[in-house]
Formats: sequence, C-alpha cells, structure tokens
Amino acid sequence: MRVLITGAFGMIGRKLTTRLLKDGAVAGGKISALHLQDVVAGDAPSVLCSVHASDLAVSGEAEKLAALKPDVVFHLAGIVSGTAEADFDLGYRVNVHGTLALFDALRRAKNSPRVVYTSSIAVFGAPFPAIIPDDFHLTPLTSYGAQKAISEAILADYTRKGIFDGIGIRFPTICVRPGKPNGAASSFFSGIIREPLAGQEAILPVPRDVVHTHASPRSAVNFLIHAAGLDGEVVGPRRNLTMPGVGVTVQEQIDALRAIAGNNVVSLIKDQPDDTIWAIVKNWPTRFDAKRARDLGFMAERNFEDIIRAHIEDELDGRLHH
Amino acid sequence: MRVLITGAFGMIGRKLTTRLLKDGAVAGGKISALHLQDVVAGDAPSVLCSVHASDLAVSGEAEKLAALKPDVVFHLAGIVSGTAEADFDLGYRVNVHGTLALFDALRRAKNSPRVVYTSSIAVFGAPFPAIIPDDFHLTPLTSYGAQKAISEAILADYTRKGIFDGIGIRFPTICVRPGKPNGAASSFFSGIIREPLAGQEAILPVPRDVVHTHASPRSAVNFLIHAAGLDGEVVGPRRNLTMPGVGVTVQEQIDALRAIAGNNVVSLIKDQPDDTIWAIVKNWPTRFDAKRARDLGFMAERNFEDIIRAHIEDELDGRLHH
Repeated sequence: MRVLITGAFGMIGRKLTTRLLKDGAVAGGKISALHLQDVVAGDAPSVLCSVHASDLAVSGEAEKLAALKPDVVFHLAGIVSGTAEADFDLGYRVNVHGTLALFDALRRAKNSPRVVYTSSIAVFGAPFPAIIPDDFHLTPLTSYGAQKAISEAILADYTRKGIFDGIGIRFPTICVRPGKPNGAASSFFSGIIREPLAGQEAILPVPRDVVHTHASPRSAVNFLIHAAGLDGEVVGPRRNLTMPGVGVTVQEQIDALRAIAGNNVVSLIKDQPDDTIWAIVKNWPTRFDAKRARDLGFMAERNFEDIIRAHIEDELDGRLHH
Repeated sequence: MRVLITGAFGMIGRKLTTRLLKDGAVAGGKISALHLQDVVAGDAPSVLCSVHASDLAVSGEAEKLAALKPDVVFHLAGIVSGTAEADFDLGYRVNVHGTLALFDALRRAKNSPRVVYTSSIAVFGAPFPAIIPDDFHLTPLTSYGAQKAISEAILADYTRKGIFDGIGIRFPTICVRPGKPNGAASSFFSGIIREPLAGQEAILPVPRDVVHTHASPRSAVNFLIHAAGLDGEVVGPRRNLTMPGVGVTVQEQIDALRAIAGNNVVSLIKDQPDDTIWAIVKNWPTRFDAKRARDLGFMAERNFEDIIRAHIEDELDGRLHH
C-alpha cells in the first residue's frame, strides 16, 4: 500500500506516522511507501518514508502528490480553528482551496484511493439538544466549521461520483494534547490535566459544569486507521461520521485526575473565569450520540480516567511525577 | 437602490427583472439602476438597465460587477441539476467557483450588499421523513445539491463575518416553467402541465405516486423580492431558508389539470418510464414544513390548481386553448 499523509508533521500526523510504521500495514495491506507532506516538513523517520514540503493550494503541488498514486490518503492538512477565524483568507485558502486542489488532483490521477479526511465537530453550531444525533443539521458558527462543512460536502459528492472513496471523520476535542498550551480557546481542556501532572499550575477559565466531548490522541489515530479500512459499501452515501468520545463536565475531568493523581495534583488547577473564552466555549457542542460511528466499529475511551491514563502511558512513559 | 441580477436572462431572471421594473423599488428603496448579468445576455428592457455578458468564473469578471456597488444582489446564475450531474467540471466551475468569485469580489468591493442567493431543495437527500423539517441535515445526492450546499455554507459564513448580508432561499421545483423543456431532471413536472395545455403530448418519466413540492414562477419572484427586504437580525445566523410550496403527487398534479382543463388535455400525458431520470428523482425530497420561511412572511400557492391558474394567467393570457 502506498500511503500519503498531508499535514504529516502536525501532532496527529506524527502519531499516525509512528503507528503506521509500527503496524507495517493499513487497510489490510502491507505498506510499501509512506509519503509525508506538510508545509514545513521534518525528517523522514524511516526508509519507507519520503518527505514532501509543499502548499497544496499552490498550483501543481497537489498533482505531485497525486502522481505518487497513493492507495490511502490521510488528509490532515489544515489551518486550526482560531487561526482560520483570525485570518479569513488563509483559512479559506488552505481549508477549502487546498482541499479542493488535492481532491481534484486525485481525480485527474484516476486511481480512486481511500481518502480519510479529518473534519471536526465544529461543523455543528448552537443551539444544541442534550445529545447531538448523527443527523443533526450543520450550522457552523465559525469559518473553520464552515470550511470543514464545505469540504465534507465535496468529499461526499466526489465519493458518490467514484472519484475516490472518501470517509470524513469529525474529531471531538483531542485531549490530552501533549506539548505546550496554545492560543486555542479549547487549550484549557488539556491544560488542566497536562500541567498539573507536570507539577505546574493550570488556569481553568470556564465554569466546572461545562460539558464537552473528548478523545485521546491515541483514539484519534485509531479513528484514522479504522476509517482507512472501512468498507465503503457499508458506510453508504453519508460519508461524514461523528466520532465517539467521552462526554464529561470539567468537574468530572478534575475528579478523574484526582482519582489517578491525587489531591495535590488537582490543587494546581486555578479557577480564573475568562469572559472571552467563555463566550466561545458556551456555544460549543456538548455530547454526541455517534451511533453510526460506534456501529461501524470506531471506539474511543470509556471514561475520562482512561483518557488520562492514555496520556500518562503515551507521553509520560507511564509514570506520575509527583 | 442599485440592483444586480446574475443569470438575469434565465426564466426567473427575466420575470424578476420585469417585476422590479414594474415595482420601481425593492427592499424599501427606489431602484436607480438595474444591472443584468448573464453568460449570454439579451437586450436591456429599460433605460434603467445595463447589460453585462460575462462568465463569473473567469478571473476579473466578478470584480466588474462588484465595482457597480450594488445594494441588492440577486445571485441566480447557475448550471441546472441535470447538466451539473452530466458535466461535473462545468457544474463545479459555475455553481461553486463562479459563486465564490462573486462573493469574494463583493468582499473586496466592501459595500456589504444584501445578497439573495437561489439555493434549492436539492441540498437534501434521501431518506426523508414524511415532512422535512427546517433543521433537516443536508445530505445532497447530486453534484448540483452538493454545489448548492457548499454555496449555502459560504453565504452563511460570509454573512456572519459581515462581508455581505446574505439570504439563501431554497426553491422548491418551479412549476409550471414556461417555454421549452430544459436540462433539469425536474423538467417533466412542468412539461406534463405545459405541453397538454398547449395541445401537445408530454412524457411522464416517473411513477404517478411520486410526491414533490412546487411553487409557481410568480411565487419564486415573490420569494426573491421578499428576501431582498428581510431584516437580517430577525433571520439570525441560519441564513438558508427552505421556501414553502405545494406538496403533491404527480397524480394530484394531473387531477388538478383535469379539473381545470378536462380529460382531453390530460390524455396527452404519456407514461414512459426513464431510468436515468428516476435514479435522480427517487432521491429527491417530498414535502417540507418550511415553518421558518412562512413565519418570515414567505408565501406560495395553496394548492396545485392555483399553480396551474398562475401559469394560465401569466403565460397564456388567461385563456385555455383547447
């Protein structure tokens, strides 16, 4: 199998690459080549890999990738939500035109690969029911969400026309993100776990009764791998799937941290309301049904303690430092 | 008010132009200029009008229209459903890239007009509930429907960002279309009324129990005019509205024709199944709730006989020729 990953040097891309190299196979076939694309590419982690530094929205760049005739494409490349909202042109350029350029290049290459596209729950916009069903209408309230909804529609139509065999997967919030806090409004969901486990204070800017749905980076990679091997006939024409996750209150996140790491660690979380963050977070989706995805075999953690354990195993060598 | 109509020399565009010239005003303001764009433009019907023959998807053409600083834009230009399905490139080029080019040109012109965009019930795809609610999810099963859904998402996001003040209106099937059959898969819904009333045979390519929702060309123009004057604050962030219409079976259409024009006229309808048309039509939506649009003051005919009478009044000088 020839595999192409766009956005391969982002957090999920790197974890996906590591996993694919470890598995040696995807979608039931042995991996013969792993093509890693990103705007700023790093080193090839294996002799199986080739690295492609490119901007998909630049004319001709997507064609170079399609010419590699990938059997499986993981299209992860994109501008994140906060940046897409702040830089309107950049968001549309990368998240819509870059995606269209890739899809059109795959069309001209005519080898009809499986395309796994990372969408987002940002395609949904408030007001929401208590549990958001799979057939909830798409009413994005951010440019990022609109760009994902647009790409989902293109993916489904190109799949219907046999141009490729696409699966769109709507990620919940990925938690616990490794690394440093970032400017994203959702950053604190990971921060209140990651920082205290590292012996550092963390700010909680929203009320503790906020409900949100999470899946670990490990589960995100599992979603991608599972999507690559799905039978398209079984999926049918509705190609964009809301992934399962763990829907919890912030208080339940904190209780899970206490159960695993104790009161001293939890005491590093400081409630410090931030109206700006709250104005964004209060319109975010809460819990999802995700029945279709679960029926198709996608699995996330069962509870938030499992999410914390995944972080400790994958990022902290399985050890608590306190 | 400076008014721009794209696709102005299509059937709806001509009727809208006639109506605007008759009213002399739109959205509460006197019309000072009426700019009529189309790929193949006809003659200016009034000294108020200027004619612009252009292809919106060609670089620079949309800018020329945006430079006219319209206060109200009726964006009707588009490739119809059957043609968009048959010619994939043409459909995306006109229905997505042409629309994006216009919207981006309006953005750069910075005068934030009201934009009335003609979407379609083709944004919905089967399976459907008995009555499709306003918040039914978008699952288009044609390229045309996907292109409309994509444009709707862009319209809503550009409106949210204050680039312009958009209203998307999802037309039901417009019936009875005057003139000749066109490339739309829905063409027969009009043909089985129009041709018999003109003493000609008409082909019915689908089963008579097909349920479909219709509004007259007169109502379509009313929708556009009404949308131009809506208060955006009242509409809120969900900018794409399903229009009301008359939901009937094909048999009920035929029964209405019989009630108005008699058995001899009805006998000109010939059942002749067409698998290609059926493959498209069988996935089309049936009946709509359209509560939001009705609450916002949009009105269609009450029954299919009214639709036939509108055709006889507007196209046949009020006379039955048989």
